[in-house]
This record gives sequence, C-alpha cells and structure tokens, in this order.
Amino acid sequence: MMKEDNGIICENVRLSENRDSVIIIDQTLLPAREVFIELKTLDDFYEAIYMLRVRGAPAIGICAGYGLAVLGSKIDCSDKDRFFMKLRKIKDRLNSSRPTAVNLSKALNRVENAALSMSGQGIDEIIGAMFKESIAIQAEDIEMCRKISEYGLSLVKSGDGILTHCNAGPLATSRYGTGLGALFLGKEQGYDFHVFADETRPLLQGARLTAYELNKSGIDVTVICDNMASIVMNQGKINACFVGCDRVAANGDTANKIGTSGVAILAKHYGIPFYVFCPSSTIDFDCASGKDIVIEERSGEEIGSLFYKEKTVPEGVKCYNPAFDVTDNGLITAIVTEKGICRAPYCESLGALFG
Amino acid sequence: MMKEDNGIICENVRLSENRDSVIIIDQTLLPAREVFIELKTLDDFYEAIYMLRVRGAPAIGICAGYGLAVLGSKIDCSDKDRFFMKLRKIKDRLNSSRPTAVNLSKALNRVENAALSMSGQGIDEIIGAMFKESIAIQAEDIEMCRKISEYGLSLVKSGDGILTHCNAGPLATSRYGTGLGALFLGKEQGYDFHVFADETRPLLQGARLTAYELNKSGIDVTVICDNMASIVMNQGKINACFVGCDRVAANGDTANKIGTSGVAILAKHYGIPFYVFCPSSTIDFDCASGKDIVIEERSGEEIGSLFYKEKTVPEGVKCYNPAFDVTDNGLITAIVTEKGICRAPYCESLGALFG
Repeated sequence: MMKEDNGIICENVRLSENRDSVIIIDQTLLPAREVFIELKTLDDFYEAIYMLRVRGAPAIGICAGYGLAVLGSKIDCSDKDRFFMKLRKIKDRLNSSRPTAVNLSKALNRVENAALSMSGQGIDEIIGAMFKESIAIQAEDIEMCRKISEYGLSLVKSGDGILTHCNAGPLATSRYGTGLGALFLGKEQGYDFHVFADETRPLLQGARLTAYELNKSGIDVTVICDNMASIVMNQGKINACFVGCDRVAANGDTANKIGTSGVAILAKHYGIPFYVFCPSSTIDFDCASGKDIVIEERSGEEIGSLFYKEKTVPEGVKCYNPAFDVTDNGLITAIVTEKGICRAPYCESLGALFG
Repeated sequence: MMKEDNGIICENVRLSENRDSVIIIDQTLLPAREVFIELKTLDDFYEAIYMLRVRGAPAIGICAGYGLAVLGSKIDCSDKDRFFMKLRKIKDRLNSSRPTAVNLSKALNRVENAALSMSGQGIDEIIGAMFKESIAIQAEDIEMCRKISEYGLSLVKSGDGILTHCNAGPLATSRYGTGLGALFLGKEQGYDFHVFADETRPLLQGARLTAYELNKSGIDVTVICDNMASIVMNQGKINACFVGCDRVAANGDTANKIGTSGVAILAKHYGIPFYVFCPSSTIDFDCASGKDIVIEERSGEEIGSLFYKEKTVPEGVKCYNPAFDVTDNGLITAIVTEKGICRAPYCESLGALFG
C-alpha cells in the first residue's frame, strides 16, 4: 500500500482515493511490523495522534488537516451554521490530541479558515475548499522538505559519514524529511552516504524509524547506542552531524530530542560540523534564547520498562526523563532552512531571512 | 542469604561455610530477581563466569580462586603428582571461561602456586593453602577497594551530585567497589550524595546493577538514559563524574565501558571534574598510550534485541557494538588508585607511585 517513488518512501500519511479516510503507517509497530491503518472516525484520528501512531510535528499536521476535511465531509447537515458548529467541535477534539505540537493547531486552523472563507457558498463547495487546503498543506510540506534537502546536500559530498539522532525523515514529515532529507535527495542523485543512527533512547526513534526508512531506500545505515557517538567520531567515521529540531529560538539556541546537545558537544570536540535542519515554521522569534524554552518531562516508565521484556530499573528507583534538551547556538555550525543556510550570529542571519 | 554490614552489600561472591561450594548472586537476573546460586561443580563455575552471572574483573578473580580451592578439595586422589595434574586441568578449564579478564588468570595462578609451594606436605595441607590463598585474594580486594574509596571520598563533599557510568561497585568487586566505593564509604560516614546513573546501553549495567546496589544501601540514585548526561550537567546537578576502568595505559589514557569517553568530553565542556578509579593491577605500563589498546567488538544483537520485547532494529540493518572506548588522558582530572591520587602528567605521576 505504500507508494514509492525512486525508492523514496512517501505518503506515509495520505488521503484515500475516494476521500473518506486517511491511511497512515502505524509508527508504533515499526520496525517489526509494517501495518497501514485507515482512519475513518473522529475517535480513529484522535487515538492515532494521541498514541503516536502518527508522529513528527509536520506529519501530525498533515494527518489532522486531512482528518478535519474527511470528517467535515461526513457531517450530515444542510444548515450551514450547524455545519460550522459541528466542524468546530471536531476541530477542538483533534486539537486536544497533542496540545503542544504547533503544526497540529496551525493545520486545523488553515482547514477551518478555508471552510469559513467559503461560507457564502454551498456545503459541497465548502467541503471542496477544505480538501483543497489539506492537500495544499501536504504539498507545501513536501516542497519545504525538498528545499531544505537541497541546501543540506550542498554541505556534504558523496562518501561522507553522517551521524544523526532521533528521526527527522519522511515518517515525521511527508517526503524527504528535514534532518534526513539531504540523504534521501542525495540518494536520488547517486550520492553514497554512510549513516550512523543513534538508537535514541528511550523511545528508540533512531533504531526503529530512521534506520527503517534509510534502509528501505537503500541508504547504508548502521545503528549505534547513543553512547557510541564519541567512538565513531574519534575513529574518523563521521564527516557531519544532521539533526532536526522542535523549536529554534531567535538567537539560534535549538530544542530537539534529548541527547542532541551531547552530540553537538562531541562534534565540537572532534571538529566535526553540526547542522540543524529547520523549517521556518519551527523558528520562534518570541523566544529570545534557549532559556525561554520549557522542557517537557515524560514518565520514567519509558526508561525502565516500555520496550524491555522485564523492568530494567530496580523497584523504587527514580528515573529522570526529559524529552528534549537545548543545544547552545555556539555549538551549531549552521541552521539549514527552506530559504537558505544561516550561520552565526543567528540573531542576524535568521532575522535577515525571516524577520 | 546476603550478608549486610552497615547496609553495605558485601560477599556477593562468598565461600560457603563448609567450604564445598561458592555462593554468588546471579547478576544476569538483577534487578528483577535477587537469586543466589550455589556453584559446586566445574561446569557450574565455568557456566557462571561464561554467562556473566558473576561479572566485574575482581569478582571473577575471587570466584575463580575460591572455585579452584573448592574443586581441588574434591579431587579424589592420594597420589600428589596425579593431584596436581588434575588441579591443572581444572585451572585450565576455569581460565578458558573468559580469556580476556586479567584478574581471572592472576587469581588462578596464585591459588595453584599456593598449592605447589606446599607440594612437600600432605594433600590436606595443600588444600588448606589453596583456601588460605583464595580467602586472601578476596581480603586484598576489599582492602584495595577501601583505600581507593578513602582517596575518592577526599575529592567530594556531602550533598554533591555524582554522575556515574556502567558499574564499578561491590557487585563487580567484593565490597565498596572502585568507581562507586567512595559513595558507599561516604554513606557509612554520613555523607549524602545524589547519584545519576547512566543506564549504560546496551547491557544496562548502570540501570540494572549500579542503581540496584546504591538503592539497596540507601543512597539516593536516579537512572537516566546515556543521552541525558549533557542535560543534567547543564542543569548544575553534577559536581563530579566517577567511573571505573578496564585498562589504563602508561600515559593515563583509559579504556572503560563504551560511552565513558563521551561522558568525559561533556564533563570537560561543562567544567566538571572527571575521576577514574583504578586499582594498580589495571595499569598496563607495557601499553604506552590508548592507541595500543584493542577494543573488543561484540555482537550487534546486544543492541537490537537482547533486552527488548521485540527487535528494535529493522531486519537487515547493521549494528556496530564496540564494548569499550578510550578516554584521552587530557580529559581526566585525576586517576584515583589504592596508593594515592595521580594527576597529569600521568606518565610521571603513575610512574612515581607504581614504576
């Protein structure tokens, strides 16, 4: 069921042909099982986002956008006021599935606004506008990823060893990805890369998802434990580090998956460039520096028992589980966006492109 | 069955009272199950060491030393030449259980030599000498650990946050341990420490063993994923890093569990002292620098499937699994031995104490 285009995985979130459902790959079952599920009801969509079956901020936005259009098209109501009231209820419930993901609320607002802008027309036209907008969200994501990937590809050469952390590939977006996009685009253009993927404890996005999608596209990938990044850098196997980001402050300080700051410190120690791949939607100019970024702390159960056969942490022992950390701008060689490559001082370079 | 002394775990490897077996805690089952097993036959001892039921170079040496004495005492033979021949066969088999552990062969040689030195006496006297020597090996280990722990304790103060990697506590030795010894000794003396234990992928010695024994002794311990060391250092929670070592070169370069070099680089970045705890038996003056130390590479299965419910790495994807890495001497604040604390330049300071 997965469409492939030159070996590149795409449409891991896609609208069904008759537009009555959205089909996603269930990311919680990867890599052991490749299972596609069809989301039809509001509960289906809510559960899929809440349970991380679809994850990665852009992918969540795309899924929710399609979801609002699909569910809107199923509202059985000829009165437009009641139609918009029902649509708002659906939107609010979808929006509550993961309240911190910015792309989720942005996508839902766009699709609802597309509907509202057609309020003078018939229900069919309103529904058509919602589908058009939700398709545009995915198309824009693919275009954004392609541009980031082109800029990223200019920073490396065929044969390079690349270290990556967590997952910022097609599964998290729609096609190419951000942090991994240059690798997929390079593969299309005949580049050879040797990728080392940190397994990325505790949720193992590197082992489970990054390795899965790189391998699927025929890109050479080796999984290492997070604590092996130092030895592979020391052995000269790494020419550059590629990571995505969850939020970038105005000064370039970058919040990303826990462990990213450690990779950046190691890269600086070994003299290896460290690149952050950042859609402009992720830059938060209201955030002056990383100090303003609040770090989500998740359940310690994720460390001691989630994936393991038996509890690995003794009964009664605490686990500390911050989900993200902040990488100081001084550790970042460049921030790669869809509009170009920014270098320090980031207050100026990010401001010049997006201010 | 575990003897405790002021809350400190000890005798995790011990001779039974009637000297016909050795009792160990099965470390492969920790922390989920505390199971003590009794080793009586040559196969029992071989299997326990080979399968890592007893692990940590000093603990292996102690177990094998007792094992040779126990098995020697069971040799049914009044002819001394045949007795020594049979003893040698037992020794060779025990020695083959983990060929790379130096303490194993050292302990076996000591117990055999004790027997040979009594060859003019009766079998009973020979057996008595073997037990005496094997008991001395454990007593010396406890004494060595206590001295290292006293020096280590002089480097910190009550209330300090300590980050540790892997396991270098009583389970790996006999009492106190090396890297963790100062924490147990400090606890006896009323110090409060706040320990952060890296879980230490892929074999999880930090989560499974270090957290177990610290918690058992009432020391405050929090388990983190290896990739969280950077954030806890950045948050000011860490005053010092304590690690053990597997081999120290003449210039102070230190081989220890994979990930140790990364912790040292982070500590240097954040300005936190990084201490290596090193019994003098671990210093290899024949090794000029870390470049001479060969790094053992283990099966990738340990990363992708050993402890997990399901394979976490996709079918067909490689895993790279070096078991150790080398920490450059320039990253080490001090090397703590049973004879004193060495600081850079280590060629001079180590040579002065042990040359």
